[in-house]
Amino acid sequence: MKKAYVHGYDPRENIRLQDQASTLVELLHSDTLYPPGSRVLEAGCGVGAQTVTLARNSPQAVITSIDISASSVAEAARTAAESGLSNVHFQQADIFNLPFGPDSFDHIFVCFVLEHLPKPVEALLALTKVLKAGGTITVIEGDHGSAYFHPDSVAARRAIQCQVQLQRRAGGNANVGRELYPLLCEAGYASVRVSPRMVYVDASKPALVDGFIRKTFTAMIEGVRQSALKAGIAERREFEEGIRDLYRTAEADGVFCYTFFKALGVKT
Amino acid sequence: MKKAYVHGYDPRENIRLQDQASTLVELLHSDTLYPPGSRVLEAGCGVGAQTVTLARNSPQAVITSIDISASSVAEAARTAAESGLSNVHFQQADIFNLPFGPDSFDHIFVCFVLEHLPKPVEALLALTKVLKAGGTITVIEGDHGSAYFHPDSVAARRAIQCQVQLQRRAGGNANVGRELYPLLCEAGYASVRVSPRMVYVDASKPALVDGFIRKTFTAMIEGVRQSALKAGIAERREFEEGIRDLYRTAEADGVFCYTFFKALGVKT
Repeated sequence: MKKAYVHGYDPRENIRLQDQASTLVELLHSDTLYPPGSRVLEAGCGVGAQTVTLARNSPQAVITSIDISASSVAEAARTAAESGLSNVHFQQADIFNLPFGPDSFDHIFVCFVLEHLPKPVEALLALTKVLKAGGTITVIEGDHGSAYFHPDSVAARRAIQCQVQLQRRAGGNANVGRELYPLLCEAGYASVRVSPRMVYVDASKPALVDGFIRKTFTAMIEGVRQSALKAGIAERREFEEGIRDLYRTAEADGVFCYTFFKALGVKT
Repeated sequence: MKKAYVHGYDPRENIRLQDQASTLVELLHSDTLYPPGSRVLEAGCGVGAQTVTLARNSPQAVITSIDISASSVAEAARTAAESGLSNVHFQQADIFNLPFGPDSFDHIFVCFVLEHLPKPVEALLALTKVLKAGGTITVIEGDHGSAYFHPDSVAARRAIQCQVQLQRRAGGNANVGRELYPLLCEAGYASVRVSPRMVYVDASKPALVDGFIRKTFTAMIEGVRQSALKAGIAERREFEEGIRDLYRTAEADGVFCYTFFKALGVKT
């Protein structure tokens, strides 16, 4: 009988497991743990992409996840139910008109939300109202201006700029990550600390080559093709060249760098 | 009698000490420690800026530091003597024509050198010849394309590009950091691992605001003013605006990001 595979005892499998452990979820969320019984507001949960991790990492916290889109909230609730989560309550609500009284929450969690808002400081101020004094806010955002790679490519950089410009036209800021420190300070938070979470990918990290370079970042830039062409900010041939060059960085001699920013502030 | 100040027991002083501990030297060098008796070659020591840290971190290693410039080597030797180092031997030598036999060294250390070389892989291959099988090479390089900041500024980015262009004209590559993985692989090293060392600076880190934004990075870009104007790649007014904007990132609401890359490879 062939010896059964045991997790962690096969050297190659060990590398793969370590590789997976260092993927995005771990990198962004592993140090966010809320105490048992603490009341946590997740503002802008969307379809619940971060909610499952948030709720699993703090299984005894009582989490309220809101989003302005009723259909997103419904989708998030389905995902949470399928994942067997029992510590999350979902609710359709607008950050700028929250249906909660003062001191309703011990902690607030905001992930990939400020990038979409024309007035991020106002959003932070609105959230602060429902947070108790001494409570914390955690904010995670990306920054497309932090992307650089080898081989470098003007076309690839221009393709990324299409996404940045489209997000700006929609009132958002794809480069908001680097601004978390001044934003939280301006919203009155104290003891603000920002820690960058850099995703460095080369061929020694095959899970990230596929999971991050191809399926996360380049797929996202590819996703704005039609909007960019329609808006007249890209020429089809050059855009395709840019996408090709982004995929090129996933080859054996390629390198890709991107940085997320995570900020923590305390309400005084 | 006023109570004497004790290191680490004053809260404010504690912050300052932590701040200093997280400066560049710590970030880049703290995990390079060579065993007692091991023979280490520092290739391209220049005036010895890294030699002192290297020798102090591995006090019982036997270090040979070389540089192609005899005057730099003399200066490095003076600095080492003033620092009381006794485990470093200095020698004028060319990486491409090393006066050492095969297997002369157990480890090689190369810091801020490849950025100046037109043929970095050839340099690595030349170094490999004097390294024993199973020995390691450690390479540290910056990457000016990794610099981004808030407030963002086109003029500041153009000023940085002046330095990048001048270095390219001189045969070097100011963006070499991101390429360490493919370079070491191409030179035949095995088990290559690259770890980025990101310097993130905001107003909560006053020592880095002054030490890195002002006195390291911006001072370096300011240093190419005359060469950039002379080469006709910059217009004085815009260059000055760029420098002003770089200093602007050192203000209370500013943020500055830069990444160094550290690579380790093993000779098979």
